Amino acid sequence: MVRLRVKGIAFDMYGTVVDVGAVAEVCREVAPDPVAFNAQWRAKQLEYTFLRTLMGRYKDFWTITEEALEFAIRRFGLQVTAEQRQRLAEAWLHPTPYPEVAAALPRLKEKYILAVLSNGSPKMLRTGLEQTGLRPHFRQVISADAVKLYKPSPKVYELAPKHMRLKKSEILFVSSNSFDVVGAKNFGFKVCWINRSGVPLDPLGPKPDFIVKSFDDLVEALSSQQTEDTSRAKT
Amino acid sequence: MVRLRVKGIAFDMYGTVVDVGAVAEVCREVAPDPVAFNAQWRAKQLEYTFLRTLMGRYKDFWTITEEALEFAIRRFGLQVTAEQRQRLAEAWLHPTPYPEVAAALPRLKEKYILAVLSNGSPKMLRTGLEQTGLRPHFRQVISADAVKLYKPSPKVYELAPKHMRLKKSEILFVSSNSFDVVGAKNFGFKVCWINRSGVPLDPLGPKPDFIVKSFDDLVEALSSQQTEDTSRAKT
Repeated sequence: MVRLRVKGIAFDMYGTVVDVGAVAEVCREVAPDPVAFNAQWRAKQLEYTFLRTLMGRYKDFWTITEEALEFAIRRFGLQVTAEQRQRLAEAWLHPTPYPEVAAALPRLKEKYILAVLSNGSPKMLRTGLEQTGLRPHFRQVISADAVKLYKPSPKVYELAPKHMRLKKSEILFVSSNSFDVVGAKNFGFKVCWINRSGVPLDPLGPKPDFIVKSFDDLVEALSSQQTEDTSRAKT
Repeated sequence: MVRLRVKGIAFDMYGTVVDVGAVAEVCREVAPDPVAFNAQWRAKQLEYTFLRTLMGRYKDFWTITEEALEFAIRRFGLQVTAEQRQRLAEAWLHPTPYPEVAAALPRLKEKYILAVLSNGSPKMLRTGLEQTGLRPHFRQVISADAVKLYKPSPKVYELAPKHMRLKKSEILFVSSNSFDVVGAKNFGFKVCWINRSGVPLDPLGPKPDFIVKSFDDLVEALSSQQTEDTSRAKT
């Protein structure tokens, strides 16, 4: 394993800290195939972040989430009331953390400055982190909204060293989204890919420094890392 | 219908002039579900154009097509030889035009300057248009490679007025890809969306000026347009 020597960890939020797949539960109310519907919604949401950044037509992530929902509703030909639309979108304000996250973060916080660096709008991040009780673990919560661009634009990743007051080489960026892994590595972070479902790596760009399956694995990898650093420092 | 008063028509290539779905035929050799495999390949190809442009890491469309193929092969867990890989990628050099295209283009050419404006690499476009016999219908064949960026970056669309020597308001841009329709309209072209499969419009950006189902419909829409223009000019 590459020796990391990092001082801070910046986490992607959606799909990494919280499970975007869990939104499918709320979709059950309107969609006969809630998993497929939710996958379409999420895919369009990401596509719209890419397209709006490319076109220079930024809108915040909440608006994009609503627009992507609208597309998915039309694509699946569903009948959805205004009230149901609102309930669906608001699932993004009440996200579900992956089960091991709440116990892992305090352990990481002992040794590293922790931050969130997300496409999410400031309101979505604030509400989501409060709702889940995870807010106290993070020193900074950084939204792409500050630059009105989305990942993988390098200008978004630049926000982390700036706000965390660290060099980019001192930051480990952690994401489950493979485009985000490539974008963060392209920017110059140390990168950990949380690959929960065992999908293949995109042959698109630089590889992550290491790959884990969960936050527990991340804690373990960093502990052995530190032991290794310490033992090397002693010799 | 909006009155158009255009002098030239710029066409997107892949999915618009030629059927990217036809590549599935070649995928039959390696994939148990060739349509799903081809759809994954195409989706990744587009995603990589977006991501590379956002990261400032341009590679030409041929390389991107190969990288996306590699991802799809891994994603589907297929065993594919180097020879088969090559045959699959080369399907993009021998594209299949939609059936009505060859007859429609000469009719449009009588009244408009025709061009192709595509993400395709110069080699892919040259080979593809020669193979299909469509090259003589287009005055210009313009590749995004000239600016090392991909659609929907406005800098790609800017190539059309420059090479066609027309104002952007004098150009009708025709595409079947909805992100391309939004990007072209955002840039300032008149836009026609060829929506062959009746998918919903993306609520992402400005709407096309008109929507047709095929090149035949486009010819008809422009003829009635011209008749209308002529009759109005006479009164």
